[in-house]
Amino acid sequence: MKVIVTAGGTSEKIDSVRSITNRATGRLGSLIAEGFLRKLPDDGSTVYYLCPENAVRPQENDKRLEIVPVCDTDGLQRQLKRLMGGNRIDAVVHSMAVSDYKTFHVTTVDKLARDICEKCLQQGMAGEKAVDAVRKCILEPQLDNKSKISSDIEHPVLILQKTPKIIGMIKDLNPSTVLVGFKLLSGVSREALIETAWRLLLKNKCDFVLANDTSSISESRHDGILIDGNKNCKELFGKKEIAAAIVNAVFSKTGVC
Amino acid sequence: MKVIVTAGGTSEKIDSVRSITNRATGRLGSLIAEGFLRKLPDDGSTVYYLCPENAVRPQENDKRLEIVPVCDTDGLQRQLKRLMGGNRIDAVVHSMAVSDYKTFHVTTVDKLARDICEKCLQQGMAGEKAVDAVRKCILEPQLDNKSKISSDIEHPVLILQKTPKIIGMIKDLNPSTVLVGFKLLSGVSREALIETAWRLLLKNKCDFVLANDTSSISESRHDGILIDGNKNCKELFGKKEIAAAIVNAVFSKTGVC
Repeated sequence: MKVIVTAGGTSEKIDSVRSITNRATGRLGSLIAEGFLRKLPDDGSTVYYLCPENAVRPQENDKRLEIVPVCDTDGLQRQLKRLMGGNRIDAVVHSMAVSDYKTFHVTTVDKLARDICEKCLQQGMAGEKAVDAVRKCILEPQLDNKSKISSDIEHPVLILQKTPKIIGMIKDLNPSTVLVGFKLLSGVSREALIETAWRLLLKNKCDFVLANDTSSISESRHDGILIDGNKNCKELFGKKEIAAAIVNAVFSKTGVC
Repeated sequence: MKVIVTAGGTSEKIDSVRSITNRATGRLGSLIAEGFLRKLPDDGSTVYYLCPENAVRPQENDKRLEIVPVCDTDGLQRQLKRLMGGNRIDAVVHSMAVSDYKTFHVTTVDKLARDICEKCLQQGMAGEKAVDAVRKCILEPQLDNKSKISSDIEHPVLILQKTPKIIGMIKDLNPSTVLVGFKLLSGVSREALIETAWRLLLKNKCDFVLANDTSSISESRHDGILIDGNKNCKELFGKKEIAAAIVNAVFSKTGVC
């Protein structure tokens, strides 16, 4: 059996020293990988653990464990294509917090204000036409973002753009893979959380989604709800319980163990 | 002897799950702390190691080592004030990559374009008055940045602001502390690097500054130039050599060892 577990959070470069990162430690992902390693048959099994450099890694020193370093969304996409293109992958547990956004371009408040005035204000535009022109102006790349933003600038402005949705490509790469997705929201009701997670499940053909909210995650706490393809919900308390439930859910679906 | 070593990179929150981080591993800082632990007298010495959760930490299991977790610029400032307010600190080696910027506010290209048009374009302003009005409009906080930015937004815009300069407060807290600053630039000439580091030394009353450039730092390489108060420059090759040179420089100045 071959399983992919993604864990930790991706980082997207802003410049040569700064990044936008997702604060995810990889602790839950490492417990999930350890859960698989404990239950998988000894021969011919592999757990591919895709994570950034600073993520928590499985404690098990196990020849069936293969760590695949991943930094940003592009790297994650590349590694998933490589692993799922060649091998039959039985399950993907996609717990990694993937950046929704990467840097589109970097500018400064001064430069942006001046540009907008020159290109839009002084043309006497009005209404929606003016809004469109200002929007275009904001989206126009201005400074080179290869080098480091000078610390003399009072107010840098980062314009972000969406990254490709990784979870959406997994069932395209391998339709028979058991897919576990994750949905993290912030300060919503239980109902709203379940509804959003359910939409994620349907949209990406997940077999299960773990729904959680930042308000019930802390150093000592991690509550979640595991939702299956029939919209059955299972309340889970603590990373260990979540990890065990996910490993069991995958096994129940693949028929192994 | 009491020494503070700051290491790794700070993270500044964008929202409840995203941060702007400085890509610094803490590897050099951990070598510097280990260098001090090897040379310091056994009794009454402490190395305070200020670092974020994911930084590399000194290997030595040593009762003279005290790890102080620091996340962002505010936290770093608070911990330095606490440590330097109460104790006599003999030296501060400030190798931590501190964010120059934190989030001022978050908005979207659409909202910003619409706001600028409503508040500035339709008032018939011109010239510098118009630029000022647009600048003010960009700097106006719009969305709540406590919660998570919705991933439906096509182009979020982050307006950043400067963080307080931590290195500038160290000699104010304790004028007799030996201070080692760090200057990281990106793709500049050796001369420009030395000049910028020298200005940092003068401005913040550093005793030494380690000047380095991202172009000569990689997984396997780390070149630097250690500059002293007489503008003497010492070329250093590799993190181990840099760490040893800094520890020796501090001891030469404090007269210990």
